[in-house]
Parts: sequence; structure tokens; C-alpha cells
Amino acid sequence: MTFFKNLIKSIMSGELKGRYFRSKDFGVLHKDINKAVESVMSKSGEVSSLVYAEHLFNLIEDLGDKQFIDFFNILLEKYDIDPNSLSKASIEYSKNKTQKNLEVITRSSEPQWVELFRRLNTVSEGTLRLVKLRERIRSLEKDNPSLAFFDRALLNLFKHWFNPSFLVLKRVDWSTPASILEKIIAYEAVHEINSWSDLRARLEPEDRRCFAFFHPLIPNEPLIFVEVALTDNMPNTIDEVIKIDRSITIDKDINTAVFYSISSCQDGLSGISFGNFLIKAVAHKLKRKNEGLIICQILLMR
Amino acid sequence: MTFFKNLIKSIMSGELKGRYFRSKDFGVLHKDINKAVESVMSKSGEVSSLVYAEHLFNLIEDLGDKQFIDFFNILLEKYDIDPNSLSKASIEYSKNKTQKNLEVITRSSEPQWVELFRRLNTVSEGTLRLVKLRERIRSLEKDNPSLAFFDRALLNLFKHWFNPSFLVLKRVDWSTPASILEKIIAYEAVHEINSWSDLRARLEPEDRRCFAFFHPLIPNEPLIFVEVALTDNMPNTIDEVIKIDRSITIDKDINTAVFYSISSCQDGLSGISFGNFLIKAVAHKLKRKNEGLIICQILLMR
Amino acid sequence: MTFFKNLIKSIMSGELKGRYFRSKDFGVLHKDINKAVESVMSKSGEVSSLVYAEHLFNLIEDLGDKQFIDFFNILLEKYDIDPNSLSKASIEYSKNKTQKNLEVITRSSEPQWVELFRRLNTVSEGTLRLVKLRERIRSLEKDNPSLAFFDRALLNLFKHWFNPSFLVLKRVDWSTPASILEKIIAYEAVHEINSWSDLRARLEPEDRRCFAFFHPLIPNEPLIFVEVALTDNMPNTIDEVIKIDRSITIDKDINTAVFYSISSCQDGLSGISFGNFLIKAVAHKLKRKNEGLIICQILLMR
Amino acid sequence: MTFFKNLIKSIMSGELKGRYFRSKDFGVLHKDINKAVESVMSKSGEVSSLVYAEHLFNLIEDLGDKQFIDFFNILLEKYDIDPNSLSKASIEYSKNKTQKNLEVITRSSEPQWVELFRRLNTVSEGTLRLVKLRERIRSLEKDNPSLAFFDRALLNLFKHWFNPSFLVLKRVDWSTPASILEKIIAYEAVHEINSWSDLRARLEPEDRRCFAFFHPLIPNEPLIFVEVALTDNMPNTIDEVIKIDRSITIDKDINTAVFYSISSCQDGLSGISFGNFLIKAVAHKLKRKNEGLIICQILLMR
Repeated sequence: MTFFKNLIKSIMSGELKGRYFRSKDFGVLHKDINKAVESVMSKSGEVSSLVYAEHLFNLIEDLGDKQFIDFFNILLEKYDIDPNSLSKASIEYSKNKTQKNLEVITRSSEPQWVELFRRLNTVSEGTLRLVKLRERIRSLEKDNPSLAFFDRALLNLFKHWFNPSFLVLKRVDWSTPASILEKIIAYEAVHEINSWSDLRARLEPEDRRCFAFFHPLIPNEPLIFVEVALTDNMPNTIDEVIKIDRSITIDKDINTAVFYSISSCQDGLSGISFGNFLIKAVAHKLKRKNEGLIICQILLMR
Repeated sequence: MTFFKNLIKSIMSGELKGRYFRSKDFGVLHKDINKAVESVMSKSGEVSSLVYAEHLFNLIEDLGDKQFIDFFNILLEKYDIDPNSLSKASIEYSKNKTQKNLEVITRSSEPQWVELFRRLNTVSEGTLRLVKLRERIRSLEKDNPSLAFFDRALLNLFKHWFNPSFLVLKRVDWSTPASILEKIIAYEAVHEINSWSDLRARLEPEDRRCFAFFHPLIPNEPLIFVEVALTDNMPNTIDEVIKIDRSITIDKDINTAVFYSISSCQDGLSGISFGNFLIKAVAHKLKRKNEGLIICQILLMR
Repeated sequence: MTFFKNLIKSIMSGELKGRYFRSKDFGVLHKDINKAVESVMSKSGEVSSLVYAEHLFNLIEDLGDKQFIDFFNILLEKYDIDPNSLSKASIEYSKNKTQKNLEVITRSSEPQWVELFRRLNTVSEGTLRLVKLRERIRSLEKDNPSLAFFDRALLNLFKHWFNPSFLVLKRVDWSTPASILEKIIAYEAVHEINSWSDLRARLEPEDRRCFAFFHPLIPNEPLIFVEVALTDNMPNTIDEVIKIDRSITIDKDINTAVFYSISSCQDGLSGISFGNFLIKAVAHKLKRKNEGLIICQILLMR
Repeated sequence: MTFFKNLIKSIMSGELKGRYFRSKDFGVLHKDINKAVESVMSKSGEVSSLVYAEHLFNLIEDLGDKQFIDFFNILLEKYDIDPNSLSKASIEYSKNKTQKNLEVITRSSEPQWVELFRRLNTVSEGTLRLVKLRERIRSLEKDNPSLAFFDRALLNLFKHWFNPSFLVLKRVDWSTPASILEKIIAYEAVHEINSWSDLRARLEPEDRRCFAFFHPLIPNEPLIFVEVALTDNMPNTIDEVIKIDRSITIDKDINTAVFYSISSCQDGLSGISFGNFLIKAVAHKLKRKNEGLIICQILLMR
């Protein structure tokens, strides 16, 4: 399998992505964001579309809040579906159930701007940037309800790209890169981690475990992680579990795995439930080594 | 980046996939394939759905051709969209353009059986198995036109999963695993490779290159590959290029890259055009080392 | 080269080492340390010698200081060279310069206990344990001058095993495992690192570098590391360089590389000079990216 | 452990080796081989010595046979030990057993030209080149008995560098790089492998195994390999084992592992016995999966 070890590295190095190609090889890059959208929409399956998409993504990220909202309102209006056509297509399909007729429905029922996001996904670090884009959309959504269209559409796309096939379970421990560990400190939402010593106390002792899901397209960002204490009985309080100075339970005495904290890391992925899969996968992993292990959760998920 | 080197390995080992969980932890696994479909459809976002999906996929793959076609016809009928509801939803949306109303359209315009494929994708080697499933569907489609529904729906899903962000460009050379190389021999569609010596003559000399796209979810299968000859002039005939016994062009004399053969490997991915991206990416890679290189294609793509 | 990526991992997993084989497959493991020595010395090139060596190494490490010194004094006496034989062999060789006669000299001029260390090196983590053994020997040597024999003999062996061919230069940065980083904090001998924030300020900014030599047989331990500041002029004081709160020099302004701290990590490797090689290799690496870079050292080596 | 995965890659890329440094940074590179030797001998522990050593190694490898033999005869004469000094040192040591006196013996008992080989080892791919050098020496030794000095001295050095700690056991199978596999074909000394199909028949079936030892400093070259057939009984003839067309023994019927061929690959390493270790390590590995497995050897070692 070693041949494939660095597939991920290759993915990340952006071999195929927008930044890779020089804009001079292509046409004009419009400063007007709406024209930039048109450039992206008019190209299909061509390499030049990557350059246009990269350019457009930069423009979007640089927008101030007001312009940002305006931009999406224009998208909504200009690239909406045509309900009449869709209604006709439905009636046509009800009369004649051919694949061609279904195809018309499929095409007519999706606003064109959804395709825009698909194309933005192909740029350098596109997936992470879309996750951050949705995070921003969600932060502005309360006062601008029309953003809900984009919040939801991105969620639907993310359900494809973050489906369980792509998730990777990794143990996080004291040999994990510091750049990941500081994110664990930052994202821990339930029982705050106050220092590197505090973190070490949760990761390094033999009777502690931490597991996270990662995704190949955003490998530097944990999606969700769970902290586990292996104990010789059910703890009475959470403080017993997380205090730094405590005695370590040795392997042969361990009979219980306490899942005491689970934290989602990306607000931009809100609505995709990784928690169930994570708990099941970790429980399975722990039980393979210790068949009689009792799994319990004293967790408050955030 | 080394932390992520084995993400792919983890993906492939099927940590989260159906085979991982024992069926005894769950409910009944129906031998009746239509009931098995119901089990998969009735579960959502739960780990148990992986077990049901694995079971169903095995049943589908074991079907004889006639049963296979019957099975899809039943799916089509039973899990079709309801055109009346969709038509109503369209009219509702034309009156009141809310996100909720668009959501109803999105839901109503996709046959339920599409979700079935998404769930089949989560099982062990699910993506490869779906590619092979589509290959089978396509082979039977001529005499069974209703299979076109599934051919097309799978293509739409594959466009998500095989979008350019996920593609990985890898050089294929004499240090590539033999298990990959024998696939290059098998899939070369333009200028047949007759032996390992023949293969070696195309891969090992310093003036020859071969590049392929791989996908993290089916890492043992090249998707498409291109063979390149680096030369000191435009060759007159293809035979000059592929004959085993020839003199090697040394580095400083090279001024031309001849893309003389490009082969798609997976009929199950037919309709997704990797070729343009591959050629652009390889051309870019070669030009980084030799800026003035002339790129030419004397290829017959298959 | 991917095939060989995990050679190191395999080395470390101790495939061939003492712990690998069960003692029950072999003869008696003597509790008497001197008999344990005889067992190791009497076996040559056989797998069983690994088990005896592992056993002996454990016994040596468990000795109290007094017994430890006694043990080495006994070795010295019992397995010394025979000067008379050596003298005779010299005379013989001066008369008749054959390879056989030189071989007699080679054999006679090395105390037999040197071979003992070679065999101890084959056990699990043997090399690291010998480095630590030498560290202990050196700490006791002042009051027990006869230990100088072993200090020196181990150095001679280490010169073989740590020769420059085996050294690996690795950048240490914020994506390095925390377990390595805490050793950087511990070993920094010149300008103390007071906290993880302090460490981060030295590793993460774009105008800072840190490089270390590692050895495949003790991969979790840096041998020596150097800290480098990339600046736009020669700094006036070291405080300018190491203060946490400072402005970052951007890439295009950088013209100077200040090697401001270099620390050896293993007292057990004292006498092998890695410093020159490290500085040359790092200077070379930096200059490859920035040809005109001025290299300066304001360092106090420890 | 992922941090260390590419240690080997780094080793091989020659970061520290002669080719790395430009000769113009250093003094004159003599075309006269004997002066080139003096340059290498006069530098110690300095980076410049790598450049001189690289230069000298190239000169040695380019020598014709006669000059090659002359060169070594000159070395022998010019850098021999001084038996009188050694004899005196022995007597001195017998009177006064200090470490200093032993050190004098150690120094006096080794010809200076041994140090030359140590320095040649530090150049790019130095170890492999020394192994090939010894191979050449051995091929000329019969008619030039004085070469025995060098044959033997290299063997003594190789015993340090190829000691069991450094050996890495790797399975060789159908996913191994073709560049390694063709060496297996070339080196198989007992039962010839006639084609890639023949090779595949020995590597790919589930009831066949092949394992090799590799060394981190010459990772593209297997040192020794063993071929194993897993069977349900003791085969009567070797032909049963190696014929291409045969039925595969399924996992649950396997009770015997037949080691039917073991081949050493490097004549330059002749005299170091890897065979015992390889057999023990492979037997151990196989038994971990199948405790009752009977191990038998019907092999003719070459």
C-alpha cells in the first residue's frame, strides 16, 4: 500500500488546482464580481475554469459584509430555477416516464448557482474555503434570511463530499503534530483545556485516548474528536477524570471506557452528524483490544 | 505533512465501513433483496445502515442478469418521484420563493433510489463497486433501456465524488508496484503493450514518461493514463516512438514532448472527462522543468 | 522511493531483536551477571545470542552504582587483551606481511569485551540503550578512572554507527510531533526555552528555522539541533532575535541567516562532532533557496 | 511514528554527501590518485573531506584492472601498520594497563588505509559502492593474493554497518516495485525464475510468501531473500512446489511452511551470514499467524 501513502500529500499540493495555472494562459479576469461569475458559469469541464474559479473565490472572500450579502442576493435572483419549466417538466414526466424526461427535471430543479459552488470546490484548498464560506454565511443568516438558501445548498454538497467513505479515524496523542494539537486545545468545547500540560495529561497517559475524524481534502483540520478515559470503574464525577494529578490505571485493571467529551470543530459543517459514527468506530476499536470493555458516555456534546 | 501520509491507507482499510461491524449487533439481514432495500432506506445517518448496505450490495452483485434487470425495474417503479407533488411544489415556489419551498423541490425532484446508491457508497470499497456496477449496467443497457436511469444517476453522483479536487496525478515508472503496472498493460487501448519488456521500454528510459490519475477511494486502479515521449524533434511515425530498440534522447537535446497514447481505464466512469485535465496537468509538470518544451499530441484517444 | 518509507518503522519495531524471540526456545538465562556475559560471548552469529544479549542488558541496567562499577572492572580483567601474544604477533607480521598475520593482530589488539557491546547493540533499542549506558559510565568516570576504557571503546563503536552516512537532517517546525518538540525544549542549552509559546515563537514564524540531525536507530531523539533567524540585517543583540513579540521579516527582505543557538542533545555521544556537518548542511539548504544569503553565527555552542 | 517515515528517503537523497557540495568551495582535486588519497587522509571530520572522498571514489572506480591492483598495492605499502611501534605499545601496556596505553594499541594495530574506507563510505551511495568495490576485489583476488587484505578489512567494516540492528525484513509480493522484482528474478540462484508469469506464480498466490532483508543505506538492493510455500503437507518433490499451474491451498488447510529457496544477492557481502536470521525471523512471523505451523526447509542455499 506504500505506493499510495502520499496520495493525500499530492491532493494537498494542489496539482490540479487553480493556483497551478497561470492566468496569462487564459482570457480576462474580471474585477467585476458578477462578470467573474459569468466567466466561471460559462466554462464547463475545462482547465481554464479553474483559473476563473480561483479568481472569483478570492473576490468573494474579500467582500465586506454588505457587499457579501448583496452578492448572494444577486446570485439568487439571476440564477434561480424556473418554476414554470419545472412544473411543465413534471407533467411531461408523469405522462412519459423516460430517462430524458427525468433528466430535464434534474436539471430544472437545481438553481444554477449550485453548480457555481461545485466549481469553487475545485480551486486550491477549495473545500476548506467553502466550509469557511458557509461558516460566514451562517453568521450573517439571522439578519439576512435569504442566505438560508446557500447555507442549505452547501450542506447538501457537503453531505456528498464528507460522506462516511471519506472520513478517516486517527488517534490524536502526544506524537501528533503540535499544529493539530493546538487546534484540539482551541476546539475543545466541553471541558476546557487550559495549557499544554493539561493537554498532555489528557493525551499521553496510557489510560487516556483521543480520536478524531479527518478528511483528505482538509487534512490539517480535525472535524470532530472524542476524549476517552480508560478506568477500572465508573467514575463518580468528571473532575476525577480530568484532573491533571491522578494515578494511572494500569492495563490489566481497565474494564470501562468513559467517553467524557466530544467536540465538533467546524461550524461550517453544522448539520452533518459525525458524532454517531465517531463513537461507534472508537468503541469498536477499543473493544477489539479488550472485548469485555464497558463503554459509557458522561458527555455533554457541543 | 507526514502526519497525513497514511490517511489514504486508513480510508482503504475500511475503518468505518460495513464489514467492520458485526451483523449480530443489529437486526435481521433479509435474504429477500427488496426487503433488504427497505432496511437500507429506512435507516438514516446511523451506523447500522452500513451493515444493511453491505448486505444489500452483496445481494445485488450476486444477481444473475435477468434478476439484476428485474431488481432495477422494481426500484424504478417503487422509488420513483411523484410528478404531481413536484408540479405542486414548483407552483408553490413560484408564488413564494422561500428556502423551505425550494427544499421541497429538491427533495421531490430526486427519485428515492438515488439515496440508495449514496448509502451503498459507504460500504467497504463501495466506490469501486459502484463503478463496476455502472459498468455492468451499461453493458446491459442496450437491450434494457430503462437501465439508462441508473447509468445516468450514477454518473451524476460520480461527478461529485470524482471531481478534480480529488484526483491525484502520479508518475508511473519502473518503481511502481507490479500490481499497478499489469493494469497499465491491460488498459493500454491505443498501442498495445505486448510484454513486460515492452512496458519497461515505455517507462524506464530517461526520455519516456507515463502519468496517471488516481482517486483516493479506489487507489489500486488508475483512472486514465498518458504515455509521453521526450524527443529532439517531431517524430515522423508512431513506430519510431514505440519501438523497443532505439537510441535514447539525452536530456540536453530534448525539445519536444509527444503525447502518443492516452487510455481511459474504467468504463464505469464513462462520461466524466479526465483527459483534458490530465493533459494540461502533465504539460504543466513537464514545462516546469523545461520551459521551452513543445507539447504535441499524435494520439488517438480511447 | 515509497517502498522504503517504512523501512525505519520496521527497524524500530524490533523485528530482529531480542524481545522478538521467546526465551523458552533457548537455554538457561543466568541470573548471575558474569555467567550471563559468558552466554553472550559464547554464541556467535546465532539468533539465540539476541535473547542472551537482551537478558544481559536488562541485568546491567538494573545494577546499582557500586555493582555497576564492579561489573566493568571484572570485564576489564577477564576479557583483556594479551599483550604478549600481541607483541609476538607484531614481530611475526614484521617478518611476514601476510593477511593472515595481520588478522591475528586485529584479533589480538581488541579486548574481547568490545565484542560484547556489539552484541548488546543488536537488542531492542540497543543503540539508544548503549548511548544511555555511556552517559552513565561518563557520569561515574571521574571517581572510577578505569571506566575510561569503556567510555572510549563505546565512542569508537559509535563513530561507526553514527557516521555521516546515517545522519538525517530534518526540519523541526510547528508540525513536528509534540513528543519531539518537548525534547527541543529540554535540550536547548544556550538560550533557554521557557514555554510552548516561547517555542512556537522560535519555530513557526516564516523567518525562523530549526533543523536537527536524527539517526534511524534512535528516531525519537534529536542528536543535535540548530536554531536560525532569517533577518534583513545583522542583529545587534541576541535579545532582538529571541524576544517573542517582534515584527516578522518578510521573504523578499531576508538577506542574512543568523545561526543563534546550537545544542547537542546526547551526552552519551560526546566526542562525535556533528556540529560542523549540521552547520554546513543547513547553510547549503538555505542557500539553495536564496543564493546571496549571508550566513553568520553568533552562537555559543553547548 | 509517521514523522520518521521519510528518514530513509532523506538518507538516500544524499543530504550530507559528497555530491551535495560543490568542489569549487574547496581546494584542488588532484588527478593523481595517490595525491587524492593524501587529500582524503589529511582531513578529518570536516565537510571538505566529503568532496575529496567523492572525487577519490570516482577515480578508483575508473581504474583499469592493472592500475586497480597497483593502486591497492601502493596503499598497502604506504599506509601499513608499524609492527615495531605496535610491539612496543604491547609491552608498555603489559606494564601499565591504562586506557591511554590501550588507545595507542588500538591506533597502532589498524592500517591507516582502513580509515580511508570509512571516509569513502560517507559519499553518495558510498555503502553500495563499497560493496561493489569488494565484489571487484574478490573477483581479482585469486591472481592477486595481496588483495585479501582489503577483502577482509571491508568485511570487518561491513560487519559493523550491516549488523542485525540495521536489517529490515520486508515482504516481497506483487505490489512490490518492478525495479525490485526484476532483481529477485536476477538473483534467484536456486530455482531459476524464467519470466514475469513465473515470478507472479511465486509471489501472488495466497499460499506463497517471499521475504527479503534490506538495509537503509542500500534500499534498492535486497541482501538476501527466501521463498516459502504454505502447504497442507510435506511436498514430495520441489516440482510440486514451483510449477506454475497448480491448485492453491486454502488458508484453513495450511499446516506446513516449506522454505524452498534462499538466495544471497550481494557477493560483496560474502562472509556475513544473514541466512540464519532471515529464516528465524520469517519462521517467527509466520508462526504468529498460525501457531501450529510446521517449518521445513528443502532448500539448497546459494
